Amino acid sequence: MPNILRREDVAFWLYDFLDLEALSQLPHFADADRSVYDAILDSVEKIAEERYQPHAQKLDANEPEFRDGSVHIIPEVKEALDAFCEAGLMGASFDADDGGLQLPYLLQTAISAWFSAANWGTSGYTGLTVAAGNLLAEHGSEEQKNRFLRPMIEGRYFGTMALSEPHAGSSVGDIRTRAEPQEDGTYRLFGNKMWISGADHEMSDNIVNLVLAKIPGGPAGVKGISLFIVPRYLINDDGSRGARNDVRLAGLNHKMGCRGTVNCVLNFGDKDGAVGYLVGERHHGLQYMFSMMNEMRIGVGLSAAALAETGYLHALDYARDRTQGRKLTDRDPSTPMVPIIEHADVKRMLLQQKAYAEGALGLCFYAARLADELRAGDQAMQEKAGLLLDILTPIVKSWPSEFGLRANEIAIQVFGGAGYTRDYPVERFYRDNRLNHIHEGTRGIQGLDLLGRKVPMRGGASFKTLVGEIKGTVKEASGMADFADLAEALERAVDLAAATTATMAGKAEQLGQEAYLANATIYLDMLGHVVVAWVWLRQALAADGARADGADALCDGKIAACRYFFRYELPTMESQCALLARLDKTCLETPAEVF
Amino acid sequence: MPNILRREDVAFWLYDFLDLEALSQLPHFADADRSVYDAILDSVEKIAEERYQPHAQKLDANEPEFRDGSVHIIPEVKEALDAFCEAGLMGASFDADDGGLQLPYLLQTAISAWFSAANWGTSGYTGLTVAAGNLLAEHGSEEQKNRFLRPMIEGRYFGTMALSEPHAGSSVGDIRTRAEPQEDGTYRLFGNKMWISGADHEMSDNIVNLVLAKIPGGPAGVKGISLFIVPRYLINDDGSRGARNDVRLAGLNHKMGCRGTVNCVLNFGDKDGAVGYLVGERHHGLQYMFSMMNEMRIGVGLSAAALAETGYLHALDYARDRTQGRKLTDRDPSTPMVPIIEHADVKRMLLQQKAYAEGALGLCFYAARLADELRAGDQAMQEKAGLLLDILTPIVKSWPSEFGLRANEIAIQVFGGAGYTRDYPVERFYRDNRLNHIHEGTRGIQGLDLLGRKVPMRGGASFKTLVGEIKGTVKEASGMADFADLAEALERAVDLAAATTATMAGKAEQLGQEAYLANATIYLDMLGHVVVAWVWLRQALAADGARADGADALCDGKIAACRYFFRYELPTMESQCALLARLDKTCLETPAEVF
Repeated sequence: MPNILRREDVAFWLYDFLDLEALSQLPHFADADRSVYDAILDSVEKIAEERYQPHAQKLDANEPEFRDGSVHIIPEVKEALDAFCEAGLMGASFDADDGGLQLPYLLQTAISAWFSAANWGTSGYTGLTVAAGNLLAEHGSEEQKNRFLRPMIEGRYFGTMALSEPHAGSSVGDIRTRAEPQEDGTYRLFGNKMWISGADHEMSDNIVNLVLAKIPGGPAGVKGISLFIVPRYLINDDGSRGARNDVRLAGLNHKMGCRGTVNCVLNFGDKDGAVGYLVGERHHGLQYMFSMMNEMRIGVGLSAAALAETGYLHALDYARDRTQGRKLTDRDPSTPMVPIIEHADVKRMLLQQKAYAEGALGLCFYAARLADELRAGDQAMQEKAGLLLDILTPIVKSWPSEFGLRANEIAIQVFGGAGYTRDYPVERFYRDNRLNHIHEGTRGIQGLDLLGRKVPMRGGASFKTLVGEIKGTVKEASGMADFADLAEALERAVDLAAATTATMAGKAEQLGQEAYLANATIYLDMLGHVVVAWVWLRQALAADGARADGADALCDGKIAACRYFFRYELPTMESQCALLARLDKTCLETPAEVF
Repeated sequence: MPNILRREDVAFWLYDFLDLEALSQLPHFADADRSVYDAILDSVEKIAEERYQPHAQKLDANEPEFRDGSVHIIPEVKEALDAFCEAGLMGASFDADDGGLQLPYLLQTAISAWFSAANWGTSGYTGLTVAAGNLLAEHGSEEQKNRFLRPMIEGRYFGTMALSEPHAGSSVGDIRTRAEPQEDGTYRLFGNKMWISGADHEMSDNIVNLVLAKIPGGPAGVKGISLFIVPRYLINDDGSRGARNDVRLAGLNHKMGCRGTVNCVLNFGDKDGAVGYLVGERHHGLQYMFSMMNEMRIGVGLSAAALAETGYLHALDYARDRTQGRKLTDRDPSTPMVPIIEHADVKRMLLQQKAYAEGALGLCFYAARLADELRAGDQAMQEKAGLLLDILTPIVKSWPSEFGLRANEIAIQVFGGAGYTRDYPVERFYRDNRLNHIHEGTRGIQGLDLLGRKVPMRGGASFKTLVGEIKGTVKEASGMADFADLAEALERAVDLAAATTATMAGKAEQLGQEAYLANATIYLDMLGHVVVAWVWLRQALAADGARADGADALCDGKIAACRYFFRYELPTMESQCALLARLDKTCLETPAEVF
């Protein structure tokens, strides 16, 4: 059985749930249709199976190593990346004008999910390059795009995003890397960057680092941050590779998981300063970086969801194959043992994984569709998609990171002792997935972003739009005999979430912002559960609509997972709302000395 | 700051919470008093810090290796184990008649917690030896005790427990290893064992494997299992080491964590059969094994709790040291950054870890005290302790495994990216702790044991005794102004748990045993939360009673964690009870084909 992703599931998400074909009616995407998408997915499936998955375990056991002055990575990684680039996949979602295929981001997201699930470590290099490329596509000058973006899309250059410094991670306004302006219009950068994935290796002709730094004399904090292109090698006027830039590897980080993606400490300006090219205007760097944050954060949630789903598929295979024990009603030890999938608790573990993994994937794909609408839709579509994406992004980033990890934890449990060994990949998925709550804004940061910024912004317009969408689904489902009970439960949940949100805002005026935000992380989980319940109901409705005549295991499975989620998971939001509504200050007020 | 365990916390648990001094009034324990205990704890603390903790990371990175015909383990492990044995710690809880110190198991449990927290991998060898020794002490003949147990207590021989086989883990009745009786009264064993920790190495003169096997012609299933001593080396009549027995290493398992404890696949009888000595009577092997299961399962929960606590202490250190960002009320980027412990969400993460880790440790220590009462108390004490231990054991094993792991997950989050690297030990604690839900009976098995056996057994006597104890604490606390609200919440929770249990039993008659047990794992979590809330309230009362004049950070911390648990954690049991009370069949009835 396929165990990276299942093609029929992906087809369900793209076509039945999210109607990719309707999206391809938009002028921006009119050059391709389902036959093109399917041909690309054929090729993705083949490359993932033949080039990515086979070396995933070897890469994990042989992480990139710095010796003799350079970073060594097992050769299978470059072979896989070459296959990816040769298939044109680096340019999938870039505009044709920039050398891309101009395909929907929704399709690109399905592609990314496939490679993340097959081999997180190897897929990291292209994911970063696409993210950096998107930033250049949006904010780079024509010259910068020609010089840097085109070779990235061609797969000759790879990209990185360099924000953090040893003393400044979440607190990005406190970075110290400085960029000294030069007479020729370039800058010289001096400083240190930390946690930079993909920033040193020999697998591409060049590495395009997008670096946040401060120009001396600018405003303090986040308002004084500018964005620079700092390539590993300078580029000659004819486009050929020039001298080594003054950016050097200071060391590698050795991680619990995600070991295949090299993670670097970088020094800028050990000698004369690293040559950097300003992107856009001075002091607008963080704003440019954040203009891509929605897609970057969808990418994190997506990789968490993809790892959860592949873990689920591996556990499912094992549960169908492994025999152990007998039905509770069978006390005769001479009868043969049954496959463990026959045990109620194993079914529970499988349903829980499926509900988490496919709820998370459905959410991420939905967010990707919104990103397409924001990019290519008409004005009304853009407005609405923008409002929804604003409020959903912290959830799309965090919910899969929380519950996708839990799914991987359970996948190990289905395997028992075997799952705890490195003979099976589920322990690797679990280690890989633990990163997702940390990078691109920690879980705590996402909670503050959701409750502190996104919920109140524009008079609560994003929140109201989300509630309106959920109510639309409630209305649709409440008229259908098979789903009326779920519609009612979702309506209760969204009403409770809305009432709780209003209560919190009311009390905040009296108790202050610190109390309002003290449980922001719990708010994030709470609203996430409501949103995923909504996504599940929409998926169940889509499955019901797509059902072939007679039995249809895929549709039955989606509906079973939806019911599981409503019965076992959604009710946890009730006690969370009680806590949130009283602006519980237990944590806020516990003095540091008593821990 | 000490980061293995804190001595003042251990003193709190032993003396303030569980009154070890009162226990030492029992005749069985009368030879030692607090001055002895404290001297032993001094020595434990020193050995853990100087001999165990320093090589924990090295051992994790250099797991035991099979080459040139033997298992190689870094020499620091044997040095640490030698120090442990030289301090007499292997015999701490064994009877003086068998060569032990005859100290309370409660003290032994504190010792184990310290070494598990310092270095799980190294501590595994002695933990297994003590467990195997306990089995021999209880069921071995005098000759077997002299021949095998005494050298184990002296630290010359190590022990193992060999139950599982490649095809039979949870389903132990299906083991196939056979023991052929010989004319001289010994047996010859043939078969394969899997997941045997500590079964092959060169660190002790001998390894005493306690092996489950079937004597041909016996009953099928669990009723035909016998227990054998199968030493790695035969022992000559003068006690010297004889020939190699026919038990051979077939391979090592390579785990995600707990890497330091060698885990083996064993072949018995590749040649003439492995010589084995029957323990007790034929076909009673599983019963003997299970007579020690309470303590073995307390040991698993304890190691999960100890890893959680040391992870918490490491995270606490980091949170006090690492600066990042500013108070929400401070928008001036030119002010210095604050230690992250000042942020409400970091306090939440610390309280959550503390509530999980110290709730779990309190629970395990309480269970250890019950084991002492069962062993050495008067008849009434024994009766009650036995009833409580029966119902608590699955919770003591599982609750720390579930929530201790969660605590380690959060410790990584407090560290951020740094916690995801192997430069800090929190990722190792997380990997180590993932084992605990798997060995000595999986989480699913514990749920079935609790709901299927322990709750209904003896007309519900265990359950009623537990409820009675909890109500006793409710009564005590309800008269105290500071704790009346907690008493009320606990009473509500235990009443709801009892009502739910009764409802389930009532419906089971109609809907059958499969439906009754379909959500046994959720019942395990639910009742676990009630029990830990009770343990927390008892700890809070003990802290309140032990409070020194004026400020007392330790006591304030216990009470803060207790309040956190009641406000943030306990309420989750309400939605679980709703699910349980309806005997939800969503999982049970989902067909295997739709996954």
